[in-house]
Amino acid sequence: MRAREIAEDYPVVTLSTGALDAVRLMAEHRLPGLVVTGANGTPTTILPASQVVRLVVPHYVQDDPALAGVLSESMADRIVDKLGRKTVADVLPQDPPRAPTVNHDDTIVEVAAVMAQQHSPLVAVLDRAGVVGIITASRLLQVALQRR
Amino acid sequence: MRAREIAEDYPVVTLSTGALDAVRLMAEHRLPGLVVTGANGTPTTILPASQVVRLVVPHYVQDDPALAGVLSESMADRIVDKLGRKTVADVLPQDPPRAPTVNHDDTIVEVAAVMAQQHSPLVAVLDRAGVVGIITASRLLQVALQRR
Repeated sequence: MRAREIAEDYPVVTLSTGALDAVRLMAEHRLPGLVVTGANGTPTTILPASQVVRLVVPHYVQDDPALAGVLSESMADRIVDKLGRKTVADVLPQDPPRAPTVNHDDTIVEVAAVMAQQHSPLVAVLDRAGVVGIITASRLLQVALQRR
Repeated sequence: MRAREIAEDYPVVTLSTGALDAVRLMAEHRLPGLVVTGANGTPTTILPASQVVRLVVPHYVQDDPALAGVLSESMADRIVDKLGRKTVADVLPQDPPRAPTVNHDDTIVEVAAVMAQQHSPLVAVLDRAGVVGIITASRLLQVALQRR
């Protein structure tokens, strides 16, 4: 079994995609994060949904969640205010982690090894044309156990 | 909108659940991790699927994924060998992170604040009886954007 056979279709975004569009993709597909590719289609990093939540919550409320009640705007308004004019590149964490990648013809054990080495919950699967899909840790475990 | 209204049903396991049963739950429900509760039903920590993958891949292969090819057993056999006689407590990382929790009547902004403060992709929702569900970051973003 090769990486391309167990990869799943997953939307990818580029560094210049609108941040709000990226968040809508995450929300609509219920994704824990998105693979971000550079201009040449190579994965650059991952934008986690939890990073977006952090961007939207002011620092003083992160420091003391009991202050959340003082926010008068809705979460939706805050998301649009904070992300409306930004790109994905603008909202990445400083020093974003490198996107973990495997080759389309890697075996399931090689995929597990890359995931383990990089402490990553997902890897992007590449062929010569670019990203062909994503493998999450739970997908890998699912496939591994099915084959027993 | 309160936490209990947007919480989703999610299997939870205890520290004494068999590790293999926990992995089968993750695989079957395609979960990125499981909430682990103590004897009294209070969430103790989270077992991420990526931690399970790390357990199953030998250290020398994590150090050099190119060595994955030398593993003669299947991933399924490795999972059963490594986890078959262990409990969830046995396979948690050292110093497992505290499970992030919110109260069932917390607002969506309070949930976001806790998620942001603890850099967590999910929180457990509690009432007096214990865990009533889970809210992931993508679920939170989904609900927030729907309400605009």
